[in-house]
Amino acid sequence: MERHLATVRLWSDAEAEAVPAVKAVFDDIRATRKSDFVNNFWRGLANDAPLLERTWESLKAVMASDGVLDPLTREMIYIAVSTANGCSYCVHSHTAAARARGMNEAQHAELLAVIGLAGQTNHLVTAMQIPVDEAFLVER
Amino acid sequence: MERHLATVRLWSDAEAEAVPAVKAVFDDIRATRKSDFVNNFWRGLANDAPLLERTWESLKAVMASDGVLDPLTREMIYIAVSTANGCSYCVHSHTAAARARGMNEAQHAELLAVIGLAGQTNHLVTAMQIPVDEAFLVER
Amino acid sequence: MERHLATVRLWSDAEAEAVPAVKAVFDDIRATRKSDFVNNFWRGLANDAPLLERTWESLKAVMASDGVLDPLTREMIYIAVSTANGCSYCVHSHTAAARARGMNEAQHAELLAVIGLAGQTNHLVTAMQIPVDEAFLVER
Amino acid sequence: MERHLATVRLWSDAEAEAVPAVKAVFDDIRATRKSDFVNNFWRGLANDAPLLERTWESLKAVMASDGVLDPLTREMIYIAVSTANGCSYCVHSHTAAARARGMNEAQHAELLAVIGLAGQTNHLVTAMQIPVDEAFLVER
Amino acid sequence: MERHLATVRLWSDAEAEAVPAVKAVFDDIRATRKSDFVNNFWRGLANDAPLLERTWESLKAVMASDGVLDPLTREMIYIAVSTANGCSYCVHSHTAAARARGMNEAQHAELLAVIGLAGQTNHLVTAMQIPVDEAFLVER
Amino acid sequence: MERHLATVRLWSDAEAEAVPAVKAVFDDIRATRKSDFVNNFWRGLANDAPLLERTWESLKAVMASDGVLDPLTREMIYIAVSTANGCSYCVHSHTAAARARGMNEAQHAELLAVIGLAGQTNHLVTAMQIPVDEAFLVER
Repeated sequence: MERHLATVRLWSDAEAEAVPAVKAVFDDIRATRKSDFVNNFWRGLANDAPLLERTWESLKAVMASDGVLDPLTREMIYIAVSTANGCSYCVHSHTAAARARGMNEAQHAELLAVIGLAGQTNHLVTAMQIPVDEAFLVER
Repeated sequence: MERHLATVRLWSDAEAEAVPAVKAVFDDIRATRKSDFVNNFWRGLANDAPLLERTWESLKAVMASDGVLDPLTREMIYIAVSTANGCSYCVHSHTAAARARGMNEAQHAELLAVIGLAGQTNHLVTAMQIPVDEAFLVER
Repeated sequence: MERHLATVRLWSDAEAEAVPAVKAVFDDIRATRKSDFVNNFWRGLANDAPLLERTWESLKAVMASDGVLDPLTREMIYIAVSTANGCSYCVHSHTAAARARGMNEAQHAELLAVIGLAGQTNHLVTAMQIPVDEAFLVER
Repeated sequence: MERHLATVRLWSDAEAEAVPAVKAVFDDIRATRKSDFVNNFWRGLANDAPLLERTWESLKAVMASDGVLDPLTREMIYIAVSTANGCSYCVHSHTAAARARGMNEAQHAELLAVIGLAGQTNHLVTAMQIPVDEAFLVER
Repeated sequence: MERHLATVRLWSDAEAEAVPAVKAVFDDIRATRKSDFVNNFWRGLANDAPLLERTWESLKAVMASDGVLDPLTREMIYIAVSTANGCSYCVHSHTAAARARGMNEAQHAELLAVIGLAGQTNHLVTAMQIPVDEAFLVER
Repeated sequence: MERHLATVRLWSDAEAEAVPAVKAVFDDIRATRKSDFVNNFWRGLANDAPLLERTWESLKAVMASDGVLDPLTREMIYIAVSTANGCSYCVHSHTAAARARGMNEAQHAELLAVIGLAGQTNHLVTAMQIPVDEAFLVER
């Protein structure tokens, strides 16, 4: 495996156990996900307990809640943003999450096709500096 | 309305009528969408008929086809990419397209929440240079 | 002024008054900032009260709190990120915020010089695909 | 360590010694930083001596000068831009530079919190296409 | 070599042989390039034969055709976009392609200088929110 | 015309006349370009005379020099980077510069086709996390 060392310390379980605010989040991650696995993102955020808490609470509220979009759709949107932002870790982790939520090969392929097409037309639009059509600007 | 003039000429219907390859695409856009409206993006691409044709064929294949993702989901993924790429026109046009495909306020709000959260965690991951967990790297 | 219409409705004060969760955030924005002005960003987020609340709480915690970085430094970091992300609104609003926190012309000029230089070397590094020096990868 | 090979040759000290214009910059890097270490970025730029000279002169003028922002603040702004641009090398090298200038864990954590929040609100603003408030557009 | 495992399966030649639509594209890549080498990008796209076909047809039409820009110029433009998008694979593969089309060290150095300068001025312009000069907005 | 007000003051000619270091650069811009027109970018940079000087000297060295790439090729590379970075002003100004250096409609169209294709494949590569082929990693 590629060995990027992070710019922050990645907390071990033993270290997390020693800080109640961190332990509480790690415990909730495990309970919510019904899995013992806590991925490196949270181990990096553990350096700042309030940031860890806020980020996890937001993630639970947005991604693990009952919502109007199904959880797989939300993961695919996450992959789309992460791709456009060039975040390799995020593409890997949310592709894994999408698969865990049932994304099959055909759905993944279609997701990639949409992402690629959007990448292309975004660039064409910007290079041409296309003005927004009046029809898109309905006052709300 | 904001008056960005484009870096290319935006073809009028009269100009498009005069070039068969362009006319054919404009006609197909209207037939496919069951609407007389041809938005500025296509009027800019008309300067390069082969590029216009390829781009429209790709768009039809990816966005207007029967697929495994429903059309609204595809539009929301498009919005997500366009947002991360900062393409104002694309956000406007695909938000309009998503609404035309039935996106309601609650769905839009949830889409925004996912996009915002992904933007945040993408930045946190990159600033911390989090290494990809072995668990995400299953050989296929 | 440029007239981008937003993709969401921007809530008036009257509309905000009618929804307690939104009113509470608008009231807190005014109280925290000691100003009657509520900028458009919050008026757009008002369409999703929980997202409005979470975003405002995060902003208060990160930007309006006692911290180890002074508030002006935090605003300049915000401008730096917003610039690299090409967010015009964010550059405008956080430049205004930085001025409100005392940023003078010389500080602004130096901020711009750092942002421009980083933009340049980021591109050079990526085009050359420079490998990370071992010296930067101390295990923590 | 990750072994990205660069798209350009990284000059050894022996190679740099043989070209006066390159040697002069390497010598000045060492003298300015009071360290024998010359990181890979400069070894890549050595392929183009005038670019190497211009880039080093700009870096000295912006980052190593007496200025109105303290050197640590400038490094944190550099990290912010590099993060938003997704430049892994730059995040690593400037995080190391910030630590060398005294950045402690609490300051780093607060920097990350601001970067993450800006990433989130940048995306929300763009997805909503929020128009710039008149209040931010004071003529200068 | 760095061992990113992809989020999709990379098809071996044996697998490609078994699917006529994929085999046809791989055969055409080899014939067009007069080389047995099929790089990983195409092996990943093989998971979606129509996307593989469309992408290869576009690449042939844009990059391998007779055109008004010489092939090396097109490769350098490709490198420029890939750098700004932070696509490491793309920078590597198109730098290799540019060298194969005759790019020498001096041309590569000048390309890098332009890319770096554009990165700098792009950031300065955005941070200053420079309005477009009337002179640039000639109606077409 | 769109009326973005800048975050900095745009210097008039009268103001520039009063500061020798700024006047010198404005004079050199006019002499080098054989035109009385000084575009807004330089009027914004005038707030920081050393940054103005360094940026203009870099631009002259990279874009207005005898080089191994012809001036039009350099302008097209500049447009490519500016597009991927979403810098509207930069796309407008460098498209104008490219036209001034002789770019015709066919060349512009081909430039757009390459930029769009690169945008597409950059996104596909990132979403698939394609590993760099060994063949691209020749030690130099």
